[in-house]
Amino acid sequence: MTYAYLGPEGTFTQAALRRVAPGGQGRPFPTVPAALDAVRRGDCEAAVVPLENSVKGVVPVTMDQLVSAELHITAEVEVPVTFTLMARPGTGLDSVTEVLSHPHALDQCARWLAEQLPEARLRPVDSTAAAAREVAEAASAAGVAAVAAPLAADLYGLASLATGIGLRAGAVTRFVSVAPAWFPPARTWLDRTSLLVNPGDGPGRLVDILTEFCSRDIEVSRLHSWPTGDRLGSYRYFIDIDGHIENPPVREAVSAIAGLGAGARFLGSYPRWGRRPEELVHTGPAGAPVSLPPTRSPHPGA
Amino acid sequence: MTYAYLGPEGTFTQAALRRVAPGGQGRPFPTVPAALDAVRRGDCEAAVVPLENSVKGVVPVTMDQLVSAELHITAEVEVPVTFTLMARPGTGLDSVTEVLSHPHALDQCARWLAEQLPEARLRPVDSTAAAAREVAEAASAAGVAAVAAPLAADLYGLASLATGIGLRAGAVTRFVSVAPAWFPPARTWLDRTSLLVNPGDGPGRLVDILTEFCSRDIEVSRLHSWPTGDRLGSYRYFIDIDGHIENPPVREAVSAIAGLGAGARFLGSYPRWGRRPEELVHTGPAGAPVSLPPTRSPHPGA
Repeated sequence: MTYAYLGPEGTFTQAALRRVAPGGQGRPFPTVPAALDAVRRGDCEAAVVPLENSVKGVVPVTMDQLVSAELHITAEVEVPVTFTLMARPGTGLDSVTEVLSHPHALDQCARWLAEQLPEARLRPVDSTAAAAREVAEAASAAGVAAVAAPLAADLYGLASLATGIGLRAGAVTRFVSVAPAWFPPARTWLDRTSLLVNPGDGPGRLVDILTEFCSRDIEVSRLHSWPTGDRLGSYRYFIDIDGHIENPPVREAVSAIAGLGAGARFLGSYPRWGRRPEELVHTGPAGAPVSLPPTRSPHPGA
Repeated sequence: MTYAYLGPEGTFTQAALRRVAPGGQGRPFPTVPAALDAVRRGDCEAAVVPLENSVKGVVPVTMDQLVSAELHITAEVEVPVTFTLMARPGTGLDSVTEVLSHPHALDQCARWLAEQLPEARLRPVDSTAAAAREVAEAASAAGVAAVAAPLAADLYGLASLATGIGLRAGAVTRFVSVAPAWFPPARTWLDRTSLLVNPGDGPGRLVDILTEFCSRDIEVSRLHSWPTGDRLGSYRYFIDIDGHIENPPVREAVSAIAGLGAGARFLGSYPRWGRRPEELVHTGPAGAPVSLPPTRSPHPGA
């Protein structure tokens, strides 16, 4: 199975792909929309893209794509954002005069770099992996280092000078695998369901929607507003709940929401990250088609 | 009264300042944090900054500042985002070969520019106003145009070649005036109250919080998640409700939320945009101090 991912090789997204699909073939794309377009065209069976970070929150470009695309989330994976300073083997920390990375990574590592390399020039580039590649391939790489994912050091033959240099030691990014499939992965004992809800007239109605989950003891684990673009203050909501769409209470709640007249779109049911595949208890035949409840949005923009 | 604003002169923020405080002195700053720092230092009495756009949603840098700063929202104003193509007087649309603007503005006007000026080179600069200024001040400005706010044409002596060229004709940005004051503006008949709530253990508790408003017929007009940064899936929420903090039901709801153990911080009560000052009915003595309910967050990070 071929997975599109946000490249180039050596990004945190590639690290996520290796976790979510250890045997999967990866194909790098320069942007999230390009990776998802490859899935829509059928060039790749699925794509792995970043959805949310513990420091920065949701990833806007992925949210926009999930709103507009007829794609489903089929898996999630969390990857620690461990920033590593790397250079060509033989380069000492003392000799580093220039540091390359993505602007967000330079920002996250600004304090460490200011303390340890106060004289070094910081140069923003397109991605952490591009920084590592440039250090590896530059004709003259004396004194040049990159801040990137540990994976990038292996891929580009660089040596680690320091690791865990980000401001937030425990920073984590959540990635999702996205595919055109209509049938969610089989139910386990620990699943998550993602929905896109348009409450219509203001978020006041959102309370009625959330109550449909609470009254059935369904935990709401995430709730994000996203502009509809129609007018100021008009938002739809990404809602993650615990449980699989095949669980009767989840199914009932989603039907009840559609009954409220709110646009509700099913984005996927998938195992919650943290369970290894061998721990998952499949309660239905693997890959068996699931007849989805009638929750396709009556509002085209939901 | 001196207002810090996101400059340079001629930005949409300056247009907002002219609407919210027609007699106020403006002082431009290069970034939102710099403008708010000027207020914290006491160099300016208030600042006008963008909070939310009908197409892009909330403005991250302003949200971050409101989380960390001990500042209150004292007014709001909405400004239509009308993009105008402008050049030195005498320049015809046919002769435009280069268009300067902020990347977001170029993005919003991409379709119009592709149709009308397919050969023109698009060059991103720091702000729409900086684009107008560069066109006005360049030694050789033949064939150069800027996409900026209509206000910028007046300020920099440029002529409008086309207006309303953005993709979303009705796009609107909401700006807020922010000040260190502890006393919100006096109550009118149409106010809004902004709160920052940390529901603690997951957004499930958010339903209990929202119910405190619904059960008192208080309309929730906005709800935005914002990462606490502590761990993946940990969010606080910006909540806008209708009504002034002095209204007994609002006051009771906010007290009840504090009683739920949720961190709730008062961000301000202010007249809802759309009322002209002379229409506002002040129901308390203007500027009279208001004793705030005990809603300062028990959670430092709320």
